[in-house]
Amino acid sequence: MTRAMKPKMSEARPRVEGLYVITRADPCRGVSHAEVARAALEGGARVVQLRDKNATTRQLLEAAQTIRQLTRQAGALFFVNDRLDVALAAEADGVHLGENDLPVETARKLAGSRLLIGASASTPEEALEAAEAGADYLGVGCIFATPSKEDAGPPLGVGIIRRIKAVTSLPIIAVGGINAKNARAVLEAGADGIAVLSAISRAQDMTAAARNLVELISTFAVRQK
Amino acid sequence: MTRAMKPKMSEARPRVEGLYVITRADPCRGVSHAEVARAALEGGARVVQLRDKNATTRQLLEAAQTIRQLTRQAGALFFVNDRLDVALAAEADGVHLGENDLPVETARKLAGSRLLIGASASTPEEALEAAEAGADYLGVGCIFATPSKEDAGPPLGVGIIRRIKAVTSLPIIAVGGINAKNARAVLEAGADGIAVLSAISRAQDMTAAARNLVELISTFAVRQK
Repeated sequence: MTRAMKPKMSEARPRVEGLYVITRADPCRGVSHAEVARAALEGGARVVQLRDKNATTRQLLEAAQTIRQLTRQAGALFFVNDRLDVALAAEADGVHLGENDLPVETARKLAGSRLLIGASASTPEEALEAAEAGADYLGVGCIFATPSKEDAGPPLGVGIIRRIKAVTSLPIIAVGGINAKNARAVLEAGADGIAVLSAISRAQDMTAAARNLVELISTFAVRQK
Repeated sequence: MTRAMKPKMSEARPRVEGLYVITRADPCRGVSHAEVARAALEGGARVVQLRDKNATTRQLLEAAQTIRQLTRQAGALFFVNDRLDVALAAEADGVHLGENDLPVETARKLAGSRLLIGASASTPEEALEAAEAGADYLGVGCIFATPSKEDAGPPLGVGIIRRIKAVTSLPIIAVGGINAKNARAVLEAGADGIAVLSAISRAQDMTAAARNLVELISTFAVRQK
């Protein structure tokens, strides 16, 4: 593929913001990653992240390829959690890296400008480090207590968003226990987007749950103007 | 780095053969991946593969970086099981792909000539498919019953080595339940190398166990000439 056919991401890097849905397969309910993604996109999600620490690489790749199609059709961004190899193989827009994953610097060296890189940060120091290493956005949390991440530390509250906004201009995606009731406080603190997991995957009507959050974000954005 | 400084692998692709040790950390015995690798290399292993399906990516990368140093010092090859991203990040010689991992073709597309690719095969059809997709060697097994791989099918016996040798010239690394007692039969069937896991990691003296197998392989090779 020539450069003219596929402009480099660095030339027009999309901004990560809005409703950011992290998929979780729920075998007990018979809900797959792709189904969560499809419902979230129908509800207006701007970003989907595929996260599955238990799947085999082949299973993860197959789910990623399906979600790549869905997000492309919806004009939404697609990230793979942790797995840079799967992100590249599925032609995802990016990879999200937590503290147990590849260092941001290593991932940037391997992926060049082929992938956007999201990095988890729970302190201003981690935020600065990720920014210097080449991250494109920050996943900041956990803001509130959450049943979705067993190894999460104590909730940080919305104050962490203000503290991190003070040291970097990278987009902040707040994560951890966010739902329709507390999302407004997160946006008021300056988050550029909110990431949800249980709020969608555990909802009776996943599309309605996503739409509700998207409207909440839009309403807030309009009032800010 | 210029081309002159680092010749492409395709220009002088090393042949995968000899004693191929798959590391297994044994926390109960306090044995790390690096310690298995070190002992195996001291015993003369020509290839080390890091395999750990439970480690985090960061843990795997750290083990890979240590084993990369050890194998480089010993002039041995280093493969990472499954994880193409970790193999690239640690500058391993290659990645080994099983049926639950990335397809060989996908991995070849992503890695180009930066990595050797090993592929598991348990039938001549799978062997041919892997060869056409760009594999550099085949891991063939399980030859004998093994406690190391719970999801292994019934043992194939040494006959599978002859059957696969009949359809491809790729090096064959036989795997599965191989030890000092049955290795000779495996070599007589035409294997270019033997991969061991328990035979090293469960040995009281891992270096002696590796040396014993290396001598067995050398003696066999000399007699063949």
